[in-house]
Amino acid sequence: MKNINSLQKELTLVKKLIKDEIIEEKTISDLYEYIFKSDGKRLRAKLSLITSSINKRKNKKRLKLAAIIELLHTATLVHDDVVDESHTRRGVKSVNSLWSNAHGVLIGDYIYSKAFILMVEIGESKILHELANATNDISKGELIQLDALQNLSINLKQLEAISYYKTGRLFEASARTGAILAGGETSFINNVSKCAKYLGVLFQVKDDLLDYSLKEEVIGKPVFQDMREGKVTYPFYFAYKNADKNDKAKLKAYLGKNKFNIEKAYNLIHQLNGIKETELLASKYLNKALTSANSIKNKHIKEEMLKLINSALYRKK
Amino acid sequence: MKNINSLQKELTLVKKLIKDEIIEEKTISDLYEYIFKSDGKRLRAKLSLITSSINKRKNKKRLKLAAIIELLHTATLVHDDVVDESHTRRGVKSVNSLWSNAHGVLIGDYIYSKAFILMVEIGESKILHELANATNDISKGELIQLDALQNLSINLKQLEAISYYKTGRLFEASARTGAILAGGETSFINNVSKCAKYLGVLFQVKDDLLDYSLKEEVIGKPVFQDMREGKVTYPFYFAYKNADKNDKAKLKAYLGKNKFNIEKAYNLIHQLNGIKETELLASKYLNKALTSANSIKNKHIKEEMLKLINSALYRKK
Repeated sequence: MKNINSLQKELTLVKKLIKDEIIEEKTISDLYEYIFKSDGKRLRAKLSLITSSINKRKNKKRLKLAAIIELLHTATLVHDDVVDESHTRRGVKSVNSLWSNAHGVLIGDYIYSKAFILMVEIGESKILHELANATNDISKGELIQLDALQNLSINLKQLEAISYYKTGRLFEASARTGAILAGGETSFINNVSKCAKYLGVLFQVKDDLLDYSLKEEVIGKPVFQDMREGKVTYPFYFAYKNADKNDKAKLKAYLGKNKFNIEKAYNLIHQLNGIKETELLASKYLNKALTSANSIKNKHIKEEMLKLINSALYRKK
Repeated sequence: MKNINSLQKELTLVKKLIKDEIIEEKTISDLYEYIFKSDGKRLRAKLSLITSSINKRKNKKRLKLAAIIELLHTATLVHDDVVDESHTRRGVKSVNSLWSNAHGVLIGDYIYSKAFILMVEIGESKILHELANATNDISKGELIQLDALQNLSINLKQLEAISYYKTGRLFEASARTGAILAGGETSFINNVSKCAKYLGVLFQVKDDLLDYSLKEEVIGKPVFQDMREGKVTYPFYFAYKNADKNDKAKLKAYLGKNKFNIEKAYNLIHQLNGIKETELLASKYLNKALTSANSIKNKHIKEEMLKLINSALYRKK
């Protein structure tokens, strides 16, 4: 109980750190305030706080690192909304929708570079190296995903690479940089990084599953968005792979279509084992994450990681 | 003559360095190739090569720094084209126009983070600090400029701040980081930085002037774009300031309008001293740049800076 409280308290401090980075110009502070008003799960910040907690002597830097990671993640979200032309984010209007695409692009760049400024202040080259590379990999993943639009010949390996670059990579970097900052042993650094990486991919697979859900009111965001945007994700991929010529044609017609009968689409994908095979894939990453978690020798860190894996597994939104 | 040749040779090596950063994914390498196919003036890369040339022992890092600066600049251009919805760049179609906004945003992020990866490799915290801050200032300038859209109450101080953040800042950072890398004395670092900063603003003022030109065929790009986009820049600002109620209404009607008689618009702005006062402002920055250049003790560097100032002054495109 004590641990949970202290982690929550630290996350509040991280939030304050981010908000303190105020600038004079009104437009920028308006955008900044708006973006950081709506809270996410702050999983990545949490990961770095957990792995850096083995050594709390560098407490100021620990919080700063978590803030940096939150900033990087937020910048990618703001740009993603421009890329996907999304109207909402975390239940409120997206920046590109409330302001404009131009504002989304530029405030994203502003937040990115703010994160780099803070990174330089931490002054650890291994951390800089990891985060610069992770940022590059995220954009690589998003670019590969653009190719997956309307691409029915994409294979499972490519889809898994996208999940890793898009999501697993920053989870991994968050755990790794936290562990590096704390001066952890190589085996500790590697184990927490691996565990976080698989946790991230698991999180993404569950995200793709949630999008193929009939319970829009539970998830709190529009469902079947991926299919609507023409994005091939796991449920669609598996269903298409298993479909005969007739069903393949039906699925193809759904991809990129804006209006359709959601129940019918769900039933088709369900019948073709799209949901089941995606759940099996989630189990594969769950096992990998658990195996890595169990190889972490520090009992407290292991438990915290297991808790995160558990929450990713049972996430309902 | 020898110096010019060696600088050109170095710029070719910088170009090669950038092109060698090839990645496996086809879409990314296609975009990357396309973006770096069309050459710009590479003024910023040149600036860093000039100021770092006082010490050529770190030659590999010198070229890498110039490549980093070129990458950063290119990333801002790619994002700018998304922001401005530009269809062309350096005489060819822009990424957002040939591919999509999504591609523009993401390849921009990719190039940004690639620059940061290379920066970390150079491993000098002062250089990292300067370039991270410059990148942040550039996006700040672009955001302030968004506010300048259709904003007739913008003042000269704000316009000059935009020119500094948007253009002067990276010129300054290029000269500064080159000088830092070469281990220059504080006075040398400060003098070249100041000179480059004013050179950058001069360059921007001339850019704004060129846009208000009747000679589209000389400039090689569409003219009166700023006014068309609703952007208040110097010629418009000065003309509006000097206009009576009647002319103010005329000018206001031009701002943001797509089609109009260019000659009539030019004559109005010219009559209202919009061109002349902008030329006076250019002279102010020319003087500042020259004064700073003259305070550089190293004769060779001073001469190279004077050459750049000269080319900015007489630029025809």
